[in-house]
Amino acid sequence: MSDFKISGVVPPVVVPDTPDYKLDVPSFERLINRLIDAGVDGLFFLGSSGEVAFSSDARRDHVLTEAVRIVDHRVPVLAGIIDTETERMVEQGKRALKIGVDALVATAPFYALGTLQDVENHFRILHKELDAPIFAYDIPVCVHVKLPWKMLAKLGQEGVLAGVKDSSGDDIGFRYLCEANAKMGHPMSVLSGHEMVVDCAYLSGADGSVPGLANVEPYGYVRMWKAAQAGDWESARKEQERINEISHIFDVTKGVAGYGAGVGSFKTALALMGIFSSNTMLPPVKPLEGENVEAIKKVLVDNGLLES
Amino acid sequence: MSDFKISGVVPPVVVPDTPDYKLDVPSFERLINRLIDAGVDGLFFLGSSGEVAFSSDARRDHVLTEAVRIVDHRVPVLAGIIDTETERMVEQGKRALKIGVDALVATAPFYALGTLQDVENHFRILHKELDAPIFAYDIPVCVHVKLPWKMLAKLGQEGVLAGVKDSSGDDIGFRYLCEANAKMGHPMSVLSGHEMVVDCAYLSGADGSVPGLANVEPYGYVRMWKAAQAGDWESARKEQERINEISHIFDVTKGVAGYGAGVGSFKTALALMGIFSSNTMLPPVKPLEGENVEAIKKVLVDNGLLES
Amino acid sequence: MSDFKISGVVPPVVVPDTPDYKLDVPSFERLINRLIDAGVDGLFFLGSSGEVAFSSDARRDHVLTEAVRIVDHRVPVLAGIIDTETERMVEQGKRALKIGVDALVATAPFYALGTLQDVENHFRILHKELDAPIFAYDIPVCVHVKLPWKMLAKLGQEGVLAGVKDSSGDDIGFRYLCEANAKMGHPMSVLSGHEMVVDCAYLSGADGSVPGLANVEPYGYVRMWKAAQAGDWESARKEQERINEISHIFDVTKGVAGYGAGVGSFKTALALMGIFSSNTMLPPVKPLEGENVEAIKKVLVDNGLLES
Amino acid sequence: MSDFKISGVVPPVVVPDTPDYKLDVPSFERLINRLIDAGVDGLFFLGSSGEVAFSSDARRDHVLTEAVRIVDHRVPVLAGIIDTETERMVEQGKRALKIGVDALVATAPFYALGTLQDVENHFRILHKELDAPIFAYDIPVCVHVKLPWKMLAKLGQEGVLAGVKDSSGDDIGFRYLCEANAKMGHPMSVLSGHEMVVDCAYLSGADGSVPGLANVEPYGYVRMWKAAQAGDWESARKEQERINEISHIFDVTKGVAGYGAGVGSFKTALALMGIFSSNTMLPPVKPLEGENVEAIKKVLVDNGLLES
Repeated sequence: MSDFKISGVVPPVVVPDTPDYKLDVPSFERLINRLIDAGVDGLFFLGSSGEVAFSSDARRDHVLTEAVRIVDHRVPVLAGIIDTETERMVEQGKRALKIGVDALVATAPFYALGTLQDVENHFRILHKELDAPIFAYDIPVCVHVKLPWKMLAKLGQEGVLAGVKDSSGDDIGFRYLCEANAKMGHPMSVLSGHEMVVDCAYLSGADGSVPGLANVEPYGYVRMWKAAQAGDWESARKEQERINEISHIFDVTKGVAGYGAGVGSFKTALALMGIFSSNTMLPPVKPLEGENVEAIKKVLVDNGLLES
Repeated sequence: MSDFKISGVVPPVVVPDTPDYKLDVPSFERLINRLIDAGVDGLFFLGSSGEVAFSSDARRDHVLTEAVRIVDHRVPVLAGIIDTETERMVEQGKRALKIGVDALVATAPFYALGTLQDVENHFRILHKELDAPIFAYDIPVCVHVKLPWKMLAKLGQEGVLAGVKDSSGDDIGFRYLCEANAKMGHPMSVLSGHEMVVDCAYLSGADGSVPGLANVEPYGYVRMWKAAQAGDWESARKEQERINEISHIFDVTKGVAGYGAGVGSFKTALALMGIFSSNTMLPPVKPLEGENVEAIKKVLVDNGLLES
Repeated sequence: MSDFKISGVVPPVVVPDTPDYKLDVPSFERLINRLIDAGVDGLFFLGSSGEVAFSSDARRDHVLTEAVRIVDHRVPVLAGIIDTETERMVEQGKRALKIGVDALVATAPFYALGTLQDVENHFRILHKELDAPIFAYDIPVCVHVKLPWKMLAKLGQEGVLAGVKDSSGDDIGFRYLCEANAKMGHPMSVLSGHEMVVDCAYLSGADGSVPGLANVEPYGYVRMWKAAQAGDWESARKEQERINEISHIFDVTKGVAGYGAGVGSFKTALALMGIFSSNTMLPPVKPLEGENVEAIKKVLVDNGLLES
Repeated sequence: MSDFKISGVVPPVVVPDTPDYKLDVPSFERLINRLIDAGVDGLFFLGSSGEVAFSSDARRDHVLTEAVRIVDHRVPVLAGIIDTETERMVEQGKRALKIGVDALVATAPFYALGTLQDVENHFRILHKELDAPIFAYDIPVCVHVKLPWKMLAKLGQEGVLAGVKDSSGDDIGFRYLCEANAKMGHPMSVLSGHEMVVDCAYLSGADGSVPGLANVEPYGYVRMWKAAQAGDWESARKEQERINEISHIFDVTKGVAGYGAGVGSFKTALALMGIFSSNTMLPPVKPLEGENVEAIKKVLVDNGLLES
């Protein structure tokens, strides 16, 4: 069983870029410090919303090096090692561990079609080769494989997995996983990435959350976690409802979709709030502009995150 | 408009591995020489069936370095630069060009969700940054985006794309693409990856094919191309039908699926035929074994590719 | 705005068949009476799990006629009018209303590919032609269209829809729908069909649930609703967790899938518990048998629903 | 083995409607007579493009009654019996046979999730209950199940199926099916519904085609079949290429999709050509209008089907 435990709010950190596509270190520092000051319990770098797919290896190393430096052991650092298959992920993991991260987050292999047996072998190899806490990242929208809760529970019980970061959209599978984890004596840290129903994830037994929207509004997520811990579900729900109003930054835009709309809205909000210096996106994605920026601004103003 | 033209049979070369997961150079040499001796018109390395997703950058470089050395300019060398997003593919492309390949084959970005506008930007950036013939690799089963034929035709007409490698399974879109390419004065080399209906692809106007099964039986594909060129469609069809009997190596296996069943059956056939030293697969995939090997052996014997 | 309001537990009633595929009226009577005695707030007939797709029009009429007779106004009766397109659903609806049901439940059109504009037209036509409370049945796994929450909210606000029965698996869209419904003054009754996370649906603001598993264990669902109404979320969660143990009747079977495994497990449990006379399934589906029946029996015994 | 054999061109007949949504019999008569005069080898009514999903049972009976009367034994009549599950399709089939059709076309069950074993049972029950030639309609885009060629071949060999109408988009599975059918002594009539690659289907061994576009241009499809029969593949290809220019009526429209765009473009073309009295679509679908009609008109004029 893994020694690494984490609970509470673990935002997947959005990465700021300069207009010429370099890591914008001062903005990164502002964001990280704001999150830690708000009371988050850990930080997850190089996740799906952390530009991992768009970043060269050199850039990934740069992001993690700065992250480790800025965080400076104030909270645990988790790092995504997203790549197409096992051997490539092992290499990503070795580099990340050398830089000093505390735990690794790995998806199922993708691109080449595999079987669930391949996926299970994959996590076993990662565990064996990397000798570090491994979180399974269940994100079928990106890798087109759903990790079955029974497989995850088995790998947790055997100590192969330290935890699960669930972005699967399968709230039933998530519930079964939480219940199985509890029955096994809680070998894994089970985290939900579904930022609009985090209160439900907690009611389902989650150990914590990985909410992208916490980049914009970390305080509410921290309060929600505390309320849930105290069994005050009405307060948790109200906090979630308040946050969900802010979450409409996702759907007030027009003519955009995918990563450019999702992470694009985070970057735009952070730029509007003065935390990021710009809302630059890495190619081939274009940043939000014009009326879409105004629409996001209005949501922020309406919800008290920005003065009009 | 691109100067690089290719037509005929361009097998996507399967890569042999030693039991400890190194590139098996002598087997690689046997396979490449056999394909060139059979009369193929080009070779495609690091495609989906060339282990690209499973190979570290160092290994990719090794595969291409040996490929370029062994081929020694006898036929053009195309190289896959498969990676998650644009910047990573640019890096793959620069390294491949430095090693000496003649053209690059790039999919749409994958993992992060994008829009078709992102995909178009992506190919434009690759063209601009790499200054080499770029083939669009249309393989929705791996990248979960179908490249629309109208976008491909536009990019061909503008000289952004030198060609298309179609593994989309959309025979209607492929037909439209071939017809559009002809009407535009044939700026692109349009190749089909659907090894069981190559005669139909030629009838549809394809410039050539990229048949994985040619690793096992290149002679029939070369004859089929010559027959189609001569307008002898009955012979082309008969050659395809003969080949399709051999293609049942894909469906005589049991309890396996995906890459392990598909590329696994190629490797197993090549090992049985003495061209590869083993049928090793890269982790986390396991090689075919036992009754599945026997079933493939029977297909080879029944079709005269192996003595019983 | 619709006058018809419903809240609480509204099980989708499973239909018992005689071995020669007729409606087994005595079993049907036992099930309905047991559900009403347990305190459910309404009953939904001819839903996805109510054999609607398998039933001829004559049989549908028979099911509804008996249902209306047996229920005898003790609780409201909702009826599915599932058919491929609008005109056919209008006909199903007219017959159902004539038989005496209180509200109708309609999916998006299916089989022919449509647009979201077609779907919206469809609900407007149903509302106009049928002049009865219409619930939108959001079940993409069957109809392959997800009803967007913004469309549902708009149709609710305009009085076209009396409510929504959500079986979409999209807990985020469901949350947004509940929040929008609350903000609009609650014009719709929003019900969740996700029987394993009903506590979460209530926390999200649902007006009730349509849990298939309530056919087997209605008492727990009734208690959970009361606990949630009282704000006692710990009790609601514990009830859900207890029920989820019973829900493993879904995944202890082997070699079966789909409707035969899902509704098949309900029928098998009800037969084992003596409520149904047999676990007959309508053709072409076969009933569960042998070890699968034993596995379900064990779950029932382990959870106190059956003596060993 | 079935006695019913059919080969050549078998258009899926598009159904004309009056502005108040009744069958437009005079238009229907014009279309049917034009098709037969052009030399087609059979007619398929109530297929996916024949409004089957949108038609009540009474309307289906009306369509078939008029069809049988107008055709008057000049060519064989095939009828779709599309409905959600087996028992409902048996009823549709009995009514169609009573009206006098020659063969029935049935999809896999849809709406309720099934297994391939259920699908196989389904076709066996249809065969047994209906005692008529049954064609399997392989149309996964509508029913979300792909019929495996091995299952189809087995059912053909056993005499359960008289043939297959393939609209699957899987040209490789289709090829295998044709090759298996030939090896078994040709028990089935295998027809392709992919109107843009019919020449390829013939080269693959198809017995005929079911091209929707033949409603608009039957003459070319008849000539293509004769050319293919004569082994004149260059002429077949040229005919297909000419037809494909006309097929752009599908993609010159804007802001529409699905059935309204596809069958809508057929109806619009037929109305422009004076064969139909209007391009009315059954609710909830709206007819094409304005610029979309003009765009289709231009394609017809450019290809000599309409004077400008």
